[in-house]
Amino acid sequence: MTTLHSFDQALRLEAAGGDRPDTWLGHTSPDYWNMVGPFGGTTAATALRAILLHPALLGEPVALTVNYAAALAEGPFSVVAKPARTNRSTQHWTVELSQAGASGDTPEVVMTATAVTAARRETWSQNDTPMPAVTLADASGRLRFSTSAWTHRYDMRPVRGVIPQVWDGSGSDSLTQLWVRDDPPRSLDFPALAAMSDVFYPRVWLRRATRVPAGTVSITTYFHADSAQLAQCGEGFLLGQARAQAFRNGFFDQTAQLWSEAGVLLATSTQIVYYKE
Amino acid sequence: MTTLHSFDQALRLEAAGGDRPDTWLGHTSPDYWNMVGPFGGTTAATALRAILLHPALLGEPVALTVNYAAALAEGPFSVVAKPARTNRSTQHWTVELSQAGASGDTPEVVMTATAVTAARRETWSQNDTPMPAVTLADASGRLRFSTSAWTHRYDMRPVRGVIPQVWDGSGSDSLTQLWVRDDPPRSLDFPALAAMSDVFYPRVWLRRATRVPAGTVSITTYFHADSAQLAQCGEGFLLGQARAQAFRNGFFDQTAQLWSEAGVLLATSTQIVYYKE
Repeated sequence: MTTLHSFDQALRLEAAGGDRPDTWLGHTSPDYWNMVGPFGGTTAATALRAILLHPALLGEPVALTVNYAAALAEGPFSVVAKPARTNRSTQHWTVELSQAGASGDTPEVVMTATAVTAARRETWSQNDTPMPAVTLADASGRLRFSTSAWTHRYDMRPVRGVIPQVWDGSGSDSLTQLWVRDDPPRSLDFPALAAMSDVFYPRVWLRRATRVPAGTVSITTYFHADSAQLAQCGEGFLLGQARAQAFRNGFFDQTAQLWSEAGVLLATSTQIVYYKE
Repeated sequence: MTTLHSFDQALRLEAAGGDRPDTWLGHTSPDYWNMVGPFGGTTAATALRAILLHPALLGEPVALTVNYAAALAEGPFSVVAKPARTNRSTQHWTVELSQAGASGDTPEVVMTATAVTAARRETWSQNDTPMPAVTLADASGRLRFSTSAWTHRYDMRPVRGVIPQVWDGSGSDSLTQLWVRDDPPRSLDFPALAAMSDVFYPRVWLRRATRVPAGTVSITTYFHADSAQLAQCGEGFLLGQARAQAFRNGFFDQTAQLWSEAGVLLATSTQIVYYKE
């Protein structure tokens, strides 16, 4: 008997079937619960998985933008993933995730997404962002920053920018570097990479050494690797790096990079995050 | 008699009316023509303008993602901008731009977009990306790199990373810094800022000093300023900076920042670009 990894369990989607060929049905997972809804990384991965399951899929993911319109409630949801345009080597997707509203009847949109998939060809290539010269041995131990279930699903080992131990307003920069992999380990694939782009705690906490309410509003991830390169990473750690460029009147941005342990830049990501105060 | 600025002319949208309250009708502009379609910045600005015109609009733009599904043909198009979800202080939008297909009848999707608008409140704020210490006087003269009409609609003055004068494969980095404003000058607003996020020529040309076919597939821009801050910029120059993080098998990314002349970080942007060879 094989037990499904908790990440695969969280991403389970069943075809709605019938006259809804683009619709998939899923259910939130307690294993990846955050404070008021599921971990956004799981939601992004779910959007991507609906695309990857689609019979009309062309190629592999290149870009994914996920907009968090509202917190998902615990329970079932539906995802509609449609190929909006299919070209010779690229395909454009629109995705919507809906859930029955508080009233119980009319489904409400809780997430919108767009994605681009493509059949990639070998070309001149160049990594212009070398991995910072840090090793797993440089990490200060496993990050434990929350009682939220999802944080236990990742083995995160910060090298720099650990979550503040004292909330005294003393922060001076927003840079975190950490090693990360699924816990238990799991072979890397596109949904996992989409989710890991969102594991960094809000930069505003680090920058201010002040814990204020904050939540991702929109995240965009570009995939620089193909499935063969992801498979080569196996269950290894990735090095993740995140920092903010600007905090202004309720929103800040957060850019991120994810490298394989061998130094291949697998994904780059940016998100805009709501914060209070 | 007031003459409409060519940018406003390019962005003209008329309500389709009737039973299509979310639909707007526009027409490509010869003034912003690129090689095989309109300048992508104008298309992104058009998506944003359809949102800004919508009677249900809440707040101001915070995030915009535009996916270029196909080159627009010269001629009319329709834009559908829908509020997918309206919360207390944020609103999520989906946008689709369509054009009659080659067959002439069924409209085909040529662009998809999502956006977030929000009613912003004053909070603790911090610019963590200071403007590079360069002045307009450091610029080497106006950039002229193309016969494409749109490049004449911007007064671009590079400080660093001018387009290669010799295509000899000698490139070593992908960083460009340039001053930019509309030509003729025009007061800064959100559509202009969205368009200016896309004025940087493909990083692959600079990095390789080799001119290969390249085109933006998807661009995401975050707006860190509100309309009052944009108005303060008036018709002044912005400093723009762009660089790539990775080039891999047909796609590279391009991150960008735009500061006001006074050093306020107005917008940050990232795009994924297709390239050949």
